[in-house]
Amino acid sequence: MVTTGLGSSLAYLLSRAERSVNRGLAAALAAEDVTVEQWRILRALADGRGHSMGELAEAVLMPHPTLTKAIDRLVDRALVYRGHDPADRRRVAVFLADRGAELLARVEGAVAGHHRVIEDAYGLERTEQLMRDLEGLVRALDAPDSPVTPRSHARS
Amino acid sequence: MVTTGLGSSLAYLLSRAERSVNRGLAAALAAEDVTVEQWRILRALADGRGHSMGELAEAVLMPHPTLTKAIDRLVDRALVYRGHDPADRRRVAVFLADRGAELLARVEGAVAGHHRVIEDAYGLERTEQLMRDLEGLVRALDAPDSPVTPRSHARS
Repeated sequence: MVTTGLGSSLAYLLSRAERSVNRGLAAALAAEDVTVEQWRILRALADGRGHSMGELAEAVLMPHPTLTKAIDRLVDRALVYRGHDPADRRRVAVFLADRGAELLARVEGAVAGHHRVIEDAYGLERTEQLMRDLEGLVRALDAPDSPVTPRSHARS
Repeated sequence: MVTTGLGSSLAYLLSRAERSVNRGLAAALAAEDVTVEQWRILRALADGRGHSMGELAEAVLMPHPTLTKAIDRLVDRALVYRGHDPADRRRVAVFLADRGAELLARVEGAVAGHHRVIEDAYGLERTEQLMRDLEGLVRALDAPDSPVTPRSHARS
């Protein structure tokens, strides 16, 4: 293993952990022919409200062009559909189709199973604490007045 | 914000945190025209030993074809060079060039600065604790007998 120096970088440790966990999730979702990104989209739409592409891109951590292609594929499989945003009929919104909701319900079992495996390997309380810590980190870094938002970085 | 449900997923929280932190690191590195992946490669080579492409791909979390292109670009900039692996002269290894070591030394200041900004925003002790927790998570998940390694997933 070559990790000299990299282990002292939070950015690197996050990337490594992210890869380990999402690799396991991807394997769990593969049985239903769903990718991690597709699952995120279905999950974000599960509140039953339509969401604009901008909202979705932010929520599922995908750049706009990639998201558009992913939505196209989900539309082809009749899992989501495009319609008018109820809040602003000039805007397009994406909605979860009934078939998407059924797939999501099936897939959630695999997702929960993957989470239990992590809790078994890492410990239930440690996993929950880590999730709270990650939420806190994102809040601290993405705060509008945070010194590490890209905007202020670009300015300096 | 649309995060319904996604906030209860460790995989998603890791992806969000990873993106926030690496975005800031990318901004800090941009001043030296270095990407996060290039920095990881230079850092992994900083031990002065040559490393095979396989070792590097694992260390810097890049798939083989992407790594090859990245190394080509670093060779073009005379920051790294390809040579014989001292341990096995039939194998090619990648080495840090003097110019790469000089760039790395300059860049490390930006990296340390980015880390300090995170420590200021999130707290020094919390940041250190989070790094230990992430190391522990990766160890727990990547252990050969772990039930979440891709290999055993594929088998189930």
